[in-house]
Amino acid sequence: MTISSVFDSHPAAQHDHTPGYTDRLGAGLGETVRLRVRVTLPVTSVKLRFVRVGEIETAVAREVSGLAGEGRWFEAELPIHDARVRYAWQLNLEGDHLNLTRLGLHHTRRGFRNWFQYLAGYQAPEWAWSSVFYQIFPDRFRNGDPSNDVQTGEYQYAGRDVTHEEWHTPLDEKGDVHAHYGGDLQGITQALPYLKTLGVTGLWLTPIFVSPSNHRYDITDYRRVDPHLGGDEAWDELARAADEAGVRIVLDGVFNHMGNENALFQAALEREDAPERALFTWRDEAGKPPYHAFFDVPTLPKIDYQNEFAVQEFLAGEESVVRHWLRRGAAGWRLDVAHMIGAGGTDEDNLPLHRALKRAARQEKGDAYVFGERFFDPEHALDGQGEDAAMNYHGFGLPVMQWLSGATYFDEPSRLDGHELVEILWDAYHALPPQVGLSMLNLLESHDIGRAHFRLGGNRTRFLAAFTLLMAYPGVPCTYYGTEIGLSQSRAGNMPWCREPMPWDEAQWDTGLLERVKALIAVRRSTEALHRGSLTFLHAEADAVAFLRELTGADGRTSRAVAVASRRSEAHEITISLPDGVWRDALTGETLTGGDVTVDASSGRLLLQG
Amino acid sequence: MTISSVFDSHPAAQHDHTPGYTDRLGAGLGETVRLRVRVTLPVTSVKLRFVRVGEIETAVAREVSGLAGEGRWFEAELPIHDARVRYAWQLNLEGDHLNLTRLGLHHTRRGFRNWFQYLAGYQAPEWAWSSVFYQIFPDRFRNGDPSNDVQTGEYQYAGRDVTHEEWHTPLDEKGDVHAHYGGDLQGITQALPYLKTLGVTGLWLTPIFVSPSNHRYDITDYRRVDPHLGGDEAWDELARAADEAGVRIVLDGVFNHMGNENALFQAALEREDAPERALFTWRDEAGKPPYHAFFDVPTLPKIDYQNEFAVQEFLAGEESVVRHWLRRGAAGWRLDVAHMIGAGGTDEDNLPLHRALKRAARQEKGDAYVFGERFFDPEHALDGQGEDAAMNYHGFGLPVMQWLSGATYFDEPSRLDGHELVEILWDAYHALPPQVGLSMLNLLESHDIGRAHFRLGGNRTRFLAAFTLLMAYPGVPCTYYGTEIGLSQSRAGNMPWCREPMPWDEAQWDTGLLERVKALIAVRRSTEALHRGSLTFLHAEADAVAFLRELTGADGRTSRAVAVASRRSEAHEITISLPDGVWRDALTGETLTGGDVTVDASSGRLLLQG
Repeated sequence: MTISSVFDSHPAAQHDHTPGYTDRLGAGLGETVRLRVRVTLPVTSVKLRFVRVGEIETAVAREVSGLAGEGRWFEAELPIHDARVRYAWQLNLEGDHLNLTRLGLHHTRRGFRNWFQYLAGYQAPEWAWSSVFYQIFPDRFRNGDPSNDVQTGEYQYAGRDVTHEEWHTPLDEKGDVHAHYGGDLQGITQALPYLKTLGVTGLWLTPIFVSPSNHRYDITDYRRVDPHLGGDEAWDELARAADEAGVRIVLDGVFNHMGNENALFQAALEREDAPERALFTWRDEAGKPPYHAFFDVPTLPKIDYQNEFAVQEFLAGEESVVRHWLRRGAAGWRLDVAHMIGAGGTDEDNLPLHRALKRAARQEKGDAYVFGERFFDPEHALDGQGEDAAMNYHGFGLPVMQWLSGATYFDEPSRLDGHELVEILWDAYHALPPQVGLSMLNLLESHDIGRAHFRLGGNRTRFLAAFTLLMAYPGVPCTYYGTEIGLSQSRAGNMPWCREPMPWDEAQWDTGLLERVKALIAVRRSTEALHRGSLTFLHAEADAVAFLRELTGADGRTSRAVAVASRRSEAHEITISLPDGVWRDALTGETLTGGDVTVDASSGRLLLQG
Repeated sequence: MTISSVFDSHPAAQHDHTPGYTDRLGAGLGETVRLRVRVTLPVTSVKLRFVRVGEIETAVAREVSGLAGEGRWFEAELPIHDARVRYAWQLNLEGDHLNLTRLGLHHTRRGFRNWFQYLAGYQAPEWAWSSVFYQIFPDRFRNGDPSNDVQTGEYQYAGRDVTHEEWHTPLDEKGDVHAHYGGDLQGITQALPYLKTLGVTGLWLTPIFVSPSNHRYDITDYRRVDPHLGGDEAWDELARAADEAGVRIVLDGVFNHMGNENALFQAALEREDAPERALFTWRDEAGKPPYHAFFDVPTLPKIDYQNEFAVQEFLAGEESVVRHWLRRGAAGWRLDVAHMIGAGGTDEDNLPLHRALKRAARQEKGDAYVFGERFFDPEHALDGQGEDAAMNYHGFGLPVMQWLSGATYFDEPSRLDGHELVEILWDAYHALPPQVGLSMLNLLESHDIGRAHFRLGGNRTRFLAAFTLLMAYPGVPCTYYGTEIGLSQSRAGNMPWCREPMPWDEAQWDTGLLERVKALIAVRRSTEALHRGSLTFLHAEADAVAFLRELTGADGRTSRAVAVASRRSEAHEITISLPDGVWRDALTGETLTGGDVTVDASSGRLLLQG
């Protein structure tokens, strides 16, 4: 079956995006890229095949010598003639021939979705690949300045008083919108030394602009930081201090809808002939607001990007919101419900709008990291022209946590086993352009779904298995505030119950967990194969999986990392076939020799080579 | 592995596009379609999940009774809110739940490519599903009127005299372009009784318009039938007689390029300021014609559809070539190198141009059958809005013949086995909208690639296995002139060697083969499950494959057909698991009882039920 050839630590033919095989990423239209393949099969000749103007063209590959690694090397030139060039290798043998695609070696050509792909002129935000991100929900992370806290009854929103909550009060129903705990940007600035010690180098902050709710996805003013979070000054100070600490900050862009208190929406409501009317999609449907809104919630009117002012104001204009905050120190944007953005109350023009957004972001900051919240299969949107990547719910977080917890995030029980887990991970990953795969924001949990510790019933062994996978999988790992010290939630469910305040009393911390998390983050940060390496699955059984990351240099030498994880709480020995050479357990320091190796997969293992 | 659940004649959950499961195809935007699923699992509840504006929505399914078939039935309504709606079923069980997609039952959601799909308002040319097509290369099929034959030296083309060849002269190098054998439309009209007896109900004619070469892919006048083929009158007579015989004719549309003798191109060459210059893409590249041309062949200048006149003249205008011949009796169009058509010397705007062509064709004739020559993976082009389907080289003809002949059509040896064959067939098929899958033009050979008999070394047993698969696979079967009586070729290779004249001396026919071919065509034509049924693979081993077609009526009763084929020349018994009930071998009349059944797969078998 298709995936069988992927389970192979000694593949008979290898090609990937790393320098030994692909001389560079991001070559421009009209340029040529030298590609290589390494084979241990008795080939009689090798061809590079690529798609051009709907036809398959062929370039003969020549053998090259002097490179490390088992087998023989061949190379050929790929003309970069289109935005996305598809290619595969053809290996001729005595009496047979094989095609090498992302699916491995096959006797047929396979569909183009499975061919290798090269994106012309695409520069990924490579700094993100070596970063470890930390997601903060600002109202709940740290109260750095109690004087700016929202006070109970200070204002009303959607007909109800807002409230001020004491930091240690568990969330109740008000937690969704009205309860404010007082976290702010000053608190984040204060916590930078803590985050730095943890090993974090990137922050994603959920929205920080003026908004009436505690989550701030209902923005009143996109150009001002909420005074209850410390206002613009607190942002400038945080940006400065973070930069000094080597931490980059990605902001949350809510461009599908605004808050109903926004002046643009208020103007549209006031007069039938207001030009602002054109920013929204009006309708007359029983039981629904008279305008399209996020899930028909009246306080969240949807922005209509048929309107060019909307495109310019938020996304693409010289002074757009996207540009404004990049100028003011943000390193990129996480795009809220990126899949919903569109024209006419729908998602029409979604991809062209994202391309316009991305162009503006990159003009402003050449390495801006732009990723979308696309909760469901995002493959169609990820060709490098729109968002760099997506939040990896579909291809990582949801299936990994479903496997480990035995249930979906809606608590539907599931007997998903390791075989199927590997299948969905591989299917989602292999069809992405290589830089996109490396830029996906991987996560186990977020402000929207149940916390990992809660979903795993507080089982530390399983959590460490999950965290090991998070640190080792292709993409940018992102951990959610508080998880490192064991923060869970007081009630079952998704948001808002996953948004409890971060305890700062260290007596409440699981310091053993914290040390393990720090150690795993440190391995991730110091292991280049985890930042840029290819992906090969090595093992799957009901309760355990293992995969290999490989980074081959221009000289043919390969550095490697292997991740192993089990969902059993007790010791769980599995045998995997490691590439030859000496290996080291990144946490215990134990050394291992390549070949068939038996390790305890419980709580996860990271094995390194080179 | 993904495909394992596909190999199942007693699936635990079933849903397909046939009436028992999908109340109708082609419902319009804004309508609702009733969908059903049949399950033998102990479900606690069933949900229909579908994608809308980037989100997954849910409809609860209710149990329905009174339907035939094992297990329980559930139904729910799908709102047709978009051009292509993706959906899946969620089956809840005690302590588990499963997702049913085109890939079968899985614990994860799988990517949207694998979900079921519904095309809004799409009306397929359903007449083609029950047709059996026959491809004719007019110069080589039958000479009905020797008085219109091209004479040797009658004119020059590309600097060489054309020649007239005696019908029984084997092809030589001139066969490519210059050698004319004298076949014509009168010959086809004369042969209609023969074709009718054979069981053919559809003809695809390679080009018939005024052209200097024998293949006529270099058209001088798109609005006139070549006088050497009998001219417009012979066309009118053929169209009339074919209609009377219940045979529909699809013409070959060469819209990527024209012949260099075309008046439009001549005008463009004559004057630098001719408006016709804009119909072509001019360039200045060493060693290439000064205009873009099909594979840089100077006699085949490529049409530039940046030019609106070109769009109107050939594709979309009120008097376009596409419309003209549909008005004059054609049943549809086969589109030559459909993947190349585009603007600016490239394939840019390929899909929008095909949508424009298709709209015009359908306005002219509501059931026009439009299929593209897309030699390579056509999936991206097949959403019902452009061509109805493609020639199925990628997903049927090339892999089937590679498996049976042990080589590709370029004679590269290959050890492709039955497992991999099923994998590529299924991967190509399962991602297509159901009506597109049923409209794909399936073929073993054509005027472009080696003849089946030649590639199979004249092995009749293997050929009958191939022909059995052709008649039974989802899509419209198309057989190439002469294959039914054993026509092969005198030299190895692809075109032009596959274009030998049809022998009309019955002494030269393999009449035993002809009777088997007739019988297989008759089974295809009389078996509705083969016209409209779903596809499930039952078996794969190195040398044999088997699949099941099922058509479930609104009452839940299912009619079925099973195809079995082996590539062994001698008897080859395989055991397959047939659905319960009484089965009949369509050719021998032998009856079989459902369950594990052993049959000789050699030369192919068709088993029917219901």
